[in-house]
Amino acid sequence: MTSDRQPNRARRSERSRRAILDATRALISEVGYAKTSIEAIAARAGVGKQTIYRWWPSKGAVIFDSFLALSEGAGGTALPDTGDLEADLKTVLRATAAEFADPEFEAPIRALGTEIINDPELAAQYREKLAGPVDEAKKARLRSGQEAGQLAADADLDLVLEMLYAPLAQRWLYRSGPLTPEYADALVEATLRAFRP
Amino acid sequence: MTSDRQPNRARRSERSRRAILDATRALISEVGYAKTSIEAIAARAGVGKQTIYRWWPSKGAVIFDSFLALSEGAGGTALPDTGDLEADLKTVLRATAAEFADPEFEAPIRALGTEIINDPELAAQYREKLAGPVDEAKKARLRSGQEAGQLAADADLDLVLEMLYAPLAQRWLYRSGPLTPEYADALVEATLRAFRP
Repeated sequence: MTSDRQPNRARRSERSRRAILDATRALISEVGYAKTSIEAIAARAGVGKQTIYRWWPSKGAVIFDSFLALSEGAGGTALPDTGDLEADLKTVLRATAAEFADPEFEAPIRALGTEIINDPELAAQYREKLAGPVDEAKKARLRSGQEAGQLAADADLDLVLEMLYAPLAQRWLYRSGPLTPEYADALVEATLRAFRP
Repeated sequence: MTSDRQPNRARRSERSRRAILDATRALISEVGYAKTSIEAIAARAGVGKQTIYRWWPSKGAVIFDSFLALSEGAGGTALPDTGDLEADLKTVLRATAAEFADPEFEAPIRALGTEIINDPELAAQYREKLAGPVDEAKKARLRSGQEAGQLAADADLDLVLEMLYAPLAQRWLYRSGPLTPEYADALVEATLRAFRP
């Protein structure tokens, strides 16, 4: 009996987890961070509040997980490693530019970004729970590029990431220019020229 | 008589103009863009609404001028040109980093930035009236660097500006790292390496 029932229970759990994360992103887009409550998420997802508290200790935790889940859908936070750093970074930056143009990503990320800009405490949580782990995955790929002699061994990897991503994020945030594949490529090429071995 | 009175009138005008611009920035910081009205600016500045409409056609126009006035105080929008592009850019980026740490600049610019992020129409006005003219001044300095053989003649100047400024702006916006003189210098050095002649 147990062996028959377990897969169903796991499927139901996964379905609830997805529903909760989707509801969270939808609420963030529609009403903002402050008004997104555990109660509202539970009602929207069709689950009880206890189900949410069983998996997440706080509202901040479920919200950042709902954004991390977007990366899972796109194949996790790890970057491709074909052995060619320039080609891999172009793949990743082109995908980031395309994500920013996708309404499923655009609206909730813009809403969360606005909250973070005006709330230092939330900004610290964001770095710890979301940006930090994603940046670590990116730096792991840069380190493998350093070992392959494709990036200066003494390059400041935080600075490399900022030069790669900040211009793209700024264009998106202020709608100040087109986010094309060519633009993504130009950013990768310029950054790698700056940190050539 | 006229020659006696004119300087006084000019001084009074300049005093009113300053009062209006200061009141505008203060209101943007305190209540945000949407709630900053011509009426509220006039009351705060101690002038009549007609005085504001004599000089500015709209609320957007006076708001962007109030931010341009910050640059005037800092010596106008033109960049220094000592003949050494790297040294001049370091001077300017160090000053920008210091401005971001100054509450007089920080609070109103953060408030305006949040509005721009969520309002495409305001973002377009911002580019036309504020960011555009400032970027042109910066590009003029980059062009003189190109003529002096200190920057690649075919460098995309929009991309150069984004790589110089977007990482600094992002660190400030998300409070994700210190804005030190050393960081400003590192950005200038990396960007100039990327666009070496």
